[in-house]
Amino acid sequence: MFAIPLTENAELRTLDPWHAEEFAANLDRCRESIRPWVGAAFVAEGVDGARATLTRYAEARAKDAARLYGIWRDGTLVGGVLFVSLSVKTGVCEIGCWLEPAAEGNGLVTRACRELLDWAFGERGMHRAEWHCRADNAKSAAVAERLGMTLEGTTRESWPFDGARYDSQIWGVLTSEWKKP
Amino acid sequence: MFAIPLTENAELRTLDPWHAEEFAANLDRCRESIRPWVGAAFVAEGVDGARATLTRYAEARAKDAARLYGIWRDGTLVGGVLFVSLSVKTGVCEIGCWLEPAAEGNGLVTRACRELLDWAFGERGMHRAEWHCRADNAKSAAVAERLGMTLEGTTRESWPFDGARYDSQIWGVLTSEWKKP
Amino acid sequence: MFAIPLTENAELRTLDPWHAEEFAANLDRCRESIRPWVGAAFVAEGVDGARATLTRYAEARAKDAARLYGIWRDGTLVGGVLFVSLSVKTGVCEIGCWLEPAAEGNGLVTRACRELLDWAFGERGMHRAEWHCRADNAKSAAVAERLGMTLEGTTRESWPFDGARYDSQIWGVLTSEWKKP
Amino acid sequence: MFAIPLTENAELRTLDPWHAEEFAANLDRCRESIRPWVGAAFVAEGVDGARATLTRYAEARAKDAARLYGIWRDGTLVGGVLFVSLSVKTGVCEIGCWLEPAAEGNGLVTRACRELLDWAFGERGMHRAEWHCRADNAKSAAVAERLGMTLEGTTRESWPFDGARYDSQIWGVLTSEWKKP
Amino acid sequence: MFAIPLTENAELRTLDPWHAEEFAANLDRCRESIRPWVGAAFVAEGVDGARATLTRYAEARAKDAARLYGIWRDGTLVGGVLFVSLSVKTGVCEIGCWLEPAAEGNGLVTRACRELLDWAFGERGMHRAEWHCRADNAKSAAVAERLGMTLEGTTRESWPFDGARYDSQIWGVLTSEWKKP
Amino acid sequence: MFAIPLTENAELRTLDPWHAEEFAANLDRCRESIRPWVGAAFVAEGVDGARATLTRYAEARAKDAARLYGIWRDGTLVGGVLFVSLSVKTGVCEIGCWLEPAAEGNGLVTRACRELLDWAFGERGMHRAEWHCRADNAKSAAVAERLGMTLEGTTRESWPFDGARYDSQIWGVLTSEWKKP
Repeated sequence: MFAIPLTENAELRTLDPWHAEEFAANLDRCRESIRPWVGAAFVAEGVDGARATLTRYAEARAKDAARLYGIWRDGTLVGGVLFVSLSVKTGVCEIGCWLEPAAEGNGLVTRACRELLDWAFGERGMHRAEWHCRADNAKSAAVAERLGMTLEGTTRESWPFDGARYDSQIWGVLTSEWKKP
Repeated sequence: MFAIPLTENAELRTLDPWHAEEFAANLDRCRESIRPWVGAAFVAEGVDGARATLTRYAEARAKDAARLYGIWRDGTLVGGVLFVSLSVKTGVCEIGCWLEPAAEGNGLVTRACRELLDWAFGERGMHRAEWHCRADNAKSAAVAERLGMTLEGTTRESWPFDGARYDSQIWGVLTSEWKKP
Repeated sequence: MFAIPLTENAELRTLDPWHAEEFAANLDRCRESIRPWVGAAFVAEGVDGARATLTRYAEARAKDAARLYGIWRDGTLVGGVLFVSLSVKTGVCEIGCWLEPAAEGNGLVTRACRELLDWAFGERGMHRAEWHCRADNAKSAAVAERLGMTLEGTTRESWPFDGARYDSQIWGVLTSEWKKP
Repeated sequence: MFAIPLTENAELRTLDPWHAEEFAANLDRCRESIRPWVGAAFVAEGVDGARATLTRYAEARAKDAARLYGIWRDGTLVGGVLFVSLSVKTGVCEIGCWLEPAAEGNGLVTRACRELLDWAFGERGMHRAEWHCRADNAKSAAVAERLGMTLEGTTRESWPFDGARYDSQIWGVLTSEWKKP
Repeated sequence: MFAIPLTENAELRTLDPWHAEEFAANLDRCRESIRPWVGAAFVAEGVDGARATLTRYAEARAKDAARLYGIWRDGTLVGGVLFVSLSVKTGVCEIGCWLEPAAEGNGLVTRACRELLDWAFGERGMHRAEWHCRADNAKSAAVAERLGMTLEGTTRESWPFDGARYDSQIWGVLTSEWKKP
Repeated sequence: MFAIPLTENAELRTLDPWHAEEFAANLDRCRESIRPWVGAAFVAEGVDGARATLTRYAEARAKDAARLYGIWRDGTLVGGVLFVSLSVKTGVCEIGCWLEPAAEGNGLVTRACRELLDWAFGERGMHRAEWHCRADNAKSAAVAERLGMTLEGTTRESWPFDGARYDSQIWGVLTSEWKKP
């Protein structure tokens, strides 16, 4: 029902448990490409796994602790952005993203993240937003940079994946630094 | 973040637990006028009561069983529309509304309900939508009529209020009958 | 332990989770015949399904929101009657029934429903009792009529079954109309 | 709705959360006299306390783990009997009772307990039923004796009350020993 | 992290859900020998069954209602002791044990139980501790006796096992009787 | 029951809900001094607040997600150390501490943290342990340094306190770096 245009043929919408089939199909198209860069629970298998993830976020939304949004391009769910966490108490939120390979390179994620940050700083009174990514995930770091974030730290060997351990970066942007481009 | 324009200065948005203060203020401005026509639990007192209502709907939304939307006019929450219930299993949903007196007479509720029905029939595959109201609530019945609904029954003395008992009307519209005006 | 005689060889008793095996056997004997007329969750398969249904009603009974009773004939559970819902707040309850084909034609359900209505109006202060059935379920409508209920409405295409959609009737009787025959 | 006659003017019925007011009134008439002999949680204060106790038992009944029954005399709830616990797994149950002073001396409790034991041994397949009481509660021990139970042990200083500690008796009767008198 | 030496090569430690694999291995080595003497739920199969038992006790510990401890000998979990129940309200607790055959005969259980009783009486203000065992479990009764407990009762046919029914003993010791040997 | 000596007159023990009164007294003696440096929920008021915190940690311990330990000096609870979080899945844990002013300067916290890290790396297979503190909390940073941790980042204005916002430091140590001094 609700939609924010991101480009001529793409828009941002809320992503709810009833989208389980679309979300499962989206994950099927990007599971292998995003698996190294997102949490293991996010890339659950099948429609039931997809619904479980969506329900977990919907329940967190009911507690005002997280939120999930999808990006549709030409009517197909191709990825999304999310508040991994959001705390009114501390004024700190963390945002993140995922995207199918075929939809990359169009600035969809950066545009969608700007909507999240506008809302977080402009409507919700957040003081600070974070972005966490594997230190060797250049694409993800580039998004943080495009959002005007500052690299504030690198936690060593904190990201386990397929038997190895990777460093993680923490990026941050403050409400005082945020201006909608 | 999301908004659908209803008129020049009014729009429909999702209504979440974090809106508790705005919702409480809205209820304060319309509690007396809507009390006879809505469920007793809906007109809870104070910010905590408002948050409890919003949380109940957010939890129901996580189960895909109900949904709540607010109507903002000139930046103020003046009322809203809702899926009182929504069942994928039976294909039946019930919609409803509430509004501050000062915002009446602009067609806001009817417009907002059309958005709900478009979504229910067009995106969610609902087969039938209902509208329940007190039989002596002429304004409410008029909305149902404007939405193209048919009066299907009157359940006698089924609505208790302030010590008396009122008849209730059940209106319905089918997906085959729905055309966005 | 408790029993109310309905006829010479039949009686009404509370139906609890520990009756799961008897209830499963009863459902096995009537699943096909009642499936078109009752909710899908009611005709669950197996002893575990039967226990789940009985537990759901026992939990609802603990909240004073529903109640389930069995009809035993010659020591065999052949069907039952229930408060599908019961609300002290609104003073409205809905009753229903199910029965094995072999036990039909003896007035068991009508007699049992009279016990429910006596209790609802006489002991629990209910103001109104409802009966919902498919509009093409003549036997069920006949029970409502024998109970002195009035047909108050027909909700169109509200009852999905095996791919088709059927109209539903709502019957009602008020405490002021109820007299034990 | 259900009732088993115990004497000319007394009967045994299920005792449910909706009886909270009657139960609270009953407790008000016997709190002082039963307080030394029953668990502290049973003699809760007020209608809310009474409802909490009844709800706890109704929830346990839904799990087939306990059951509560009231004794009404001349239409007034004067006490009751209960399955403190009941385990299909072990075949062991424990029964108990409470009674207003004004209703004592009529054999109501003994009669009611016989109904419980008939049901436990005859319908539920219990192997053994227990009765626990303070060792200095002669009236209670007399009920156990009248029910044909055997004193099997005395646990020392296991019953705290008002700052002192009392011995407790454990009585038991086996299904092989039970015959309805 | 924490350990109390019991003998030269054995010690008592807390036993937590993360020990599930060790506990499962321990159960595999003693399931057949302890099965007749402990509750059926305790000898669950597999690592998942072991974790379920450990989690149940950890949750009970969070409610201050039970506690579980393991006995490690030469670095291997060989058995343990537990508070089956512990009630601050009544001042009564029940203790118990299990042990692999290979570790028997070294006084490990008796020593470990003394630690429990020292803590129960000395730190937690318990008034009374109980020991329940099958009446034909001479080894278990011997532990109770070594702990200075008194046999207070024998409940007949209260312990079902493999189709037969056994008597159970209840032993007890009071805080006034307890002296650390 | 369990204790690890830290100094001649101080020891580390598990801290459970039943310690609520001791913990509340400890908090009363250090609330003002630790308030700027710990989470708001930790310094809850009264015995009920203290019990709520202890219960939250005991429940988290049952899920193997956090753990709480107290430091007793001359028999008085003067502070403690904790696993704020612990994840077997990622191999990452975070530790923390609190202490009464009167007990400072004796190395109690550093010694206690070494016990936690020995256990985390030696027994639980953790790969990495973190320490988070306000950037202007020199004493806390000094503990991290003494534990051999590396300062890996400073998240700007992430710590709200009394209307202002402070930077936070993230320190980390890897299992490969850990050697018990």
